[in-house]
Amino acid sequence: MQSRYFTINDHPQGTPARELFELHEQALPSLAQGEVRIRNTWLSVDPYMRGRMSGVTTYIEPFELNAPLEGAAIGEVIESRDANFPVGTKVRHMGGWRDIAQLPGDQLESLPTFKVPEQAYLGVLGMPGMTAWTGLNRIAEMQEGDNVLVSGAAGAVGSLAVQLAKAKGGTVVGIAGSPDKLDWLASHGIQPVSYRNKNAAELTEALHDACPEGFDVYYENVGGTCLEAALNTLRVGARIAICGMIARYNEETPSPGPGNLAMLLIRRARMEGFIVFDHWAHYSQFLEDVGPQVESGQLDYEETVEEGLERTPDAFLKLFEGANRGKMLVRL
Amino acid sequence: MQSRYFTINDHPQGTPARELFELHEQALPSLAQGEVRIRNTWLSVDPYMRGRMSGVTTYIEPFELNAPLEGAAIGEVIESRDANFPVGTKVRHMGGWRDIAQLPGDQLESLPTFKVPEQAYLGVLGMPGMTAWTGLNRIAEMQEGDNVLVSGAAGAVGSLAVQLAKAKGGTVVGIAGSPDKLDWLASHGIQPVSYRNKNAAELTEALHDACPEGFDVYYENVGGTCLEAALNTLRVGARIAICGMIARYNEETPSPGPGNLAMLLIRRARMEGFIVFDHWAHYSQFLEDVGPQVESGQLDYEETVEEGLERTPDAFLKLFEGANRGKMLVRL
Repeated sequence: MQSRYFTINDHPQGTPARELFELHEQALPSLAQGEVRIRNTWLSVDPYMRGRMSGVTTYIEPFELNAPLEGAAIGEVIESRDANFPVGTKVRHMGGWRDIAQLPGDQLESLPTFKVPEQAYLGVLGMPGMTAWTGLNRIAEMQEGDNVLVSGAAGAVGSLAVQLAKAKGGTVVGIAGSPDKLDWLASHGIQPVSYRNKNAAELTEALHDACPEGFDVYYENVGGTCLEAALNTLRVGARIAICGMIARYNEETPSPGPGNLAMLLIRRARMEGFIVFDHWAHYSQFLEDVGPQVESGQLDYEETVEEGLERTPDAFLKLFEGANRGKMLVRL
Repeated sequence: MQSRYFTINDHPQGTPARELFELHEQALPSLAQGEVRIRNTWLSVDPYMRGRMSGVTTYIEPFELNAPLEGAAIGEVIESRDANFPVGTKVRHMGGWRDIAQLPGDQLESLPTFKVPEQAYLGVLGMPGMTAWTGLNRIAEMQEGDNVLVSGAAGAVGSLAVQLAKAKGGTVVGIAGSPDKLDWLASHGIQPVSYRNKNAAELTEALHDACPEGFDVYYENVGGTCLEAALNTLRVGARIAICGMIARYNEETPSPGPGNLAMLLIRRARMEGFIVFDHWAHYSQFLEDVGPQVESGQLDYEETVEEGLERTPDAFLKLFEGANRGKMLVRL
């Protein structure tokens, strides 16, 4: 059987070009004992993958050039030599960026049994959802009644963070750019603030207008001006969870950071970076908390879907244009 | 009885000029019930006082123009209408920047009874010592065996932080500038690193040479280049205690911050600002831990002493020239 997969042919500087990605095809060897063959139905593309393209080890191994890229995927077992995963089992695994994956059974998870569409396990009940929940609860230690600020608030992670924060009894302000993202936030009871055409001082003022008391929690997805403005609006004892700094992922040379880090001192605030993979032992706790909210329709989640394996690089590149609302997915 | 005291006549921009400070004299009213009159013997000058001169509320009320400045002081009760503080009692209080203080008894603390010189309660067993201990233990949660980096490592707080870290079983690297400060560090088993004539990349390399494994704890007194270099040398799960950023206290406009804050994410590190006054409930725990180390001579502390009330502003201004080693004091 043939598998088609994407590779990268170089380590990009700055924003990757579409030509970086190459589609290849190979014949799969027959299954070894313990191996499973999966027909992927959904592929995930995520901002963190940009880091893996740079050729240096950050918190995760870099992608190898000219080898199949990796990423979360959902699929159905079509051939199996692992009794735990009979043919027909729906599974999640890291063999994305390809149509047919062949993996050892110990690298697969059967999908949980909530009544939700299967691709939810790549988004609201997968890594982005777990990231939103972990940052809010385990890093920022959000308490009921906290004032919560989220940047990238209509993105895959941010759109869940704002809703989880609201469901937990917070007053929530979300920073986003485009009018439709701001509308989406407002329609979910989140006070929207646009970052567009604002410098840090202007964004600070807009945040102050949105929440004059200031913020107990800042959920950081963006960096840059958003971080600088957020630092100006912290309450004493505030906690910042740094989930990502997408504004900088494609920079060729680092920009200066915020000039007001001393706010951490003045407000006795804490800022902490985290990687969701470190917290995966708590995934079942997350599912128990958030799964029923998704099943009942209480938690709204959006998907932006590209069709067909060939579009996977385009879906990935759109992440850096702010073109997606909610989780960016590829349907095969 | 007359009291002589210092005031400021303006809110300084940038480094304060000597002319900012004015010496005044007033006749004290007779003691009200509960009040105590103290002849000060030692005055403390501290970097945090610069923040109080700016006319804005940070974590502490600003100094009022043309009113007596405040600060920690040690003195002896010379007249009392509070039975808890009979004449002859040695006390610590915040009525510094003056020779005779008159205060309600509830604003005084009797000095503890360790066999140490009384001015130790302004330094190693006072606010600077408590600051070193709090940052290391309560904020950075230093564990035995940690690799610890301290900036401003020969200053009033830093010189205690490095020794406390070493006594707790850490491998300790200290950043300082002048050769005699570096020598002092080396003679106490601290690996010295000079920041002089180094940009962030060069300081990063020097820190890497001093401790190739990287740091579990960074005790931050300085900011600027030191912070940027330290961020590059964190181990996974590192903790940064921000005690001060003296490099910036006199800046008229904020400089950009470090361009590598994303290291917090990559290393899943935590950075937290703290103010020692918030932790004063733990002062007795600090005394119990550190008092015996001072009494036995195990903990070395330095003092830079200016003589006479008139020299108080000069002592204060020297803090920003890096001219002091250890605690800067004024002896009356």
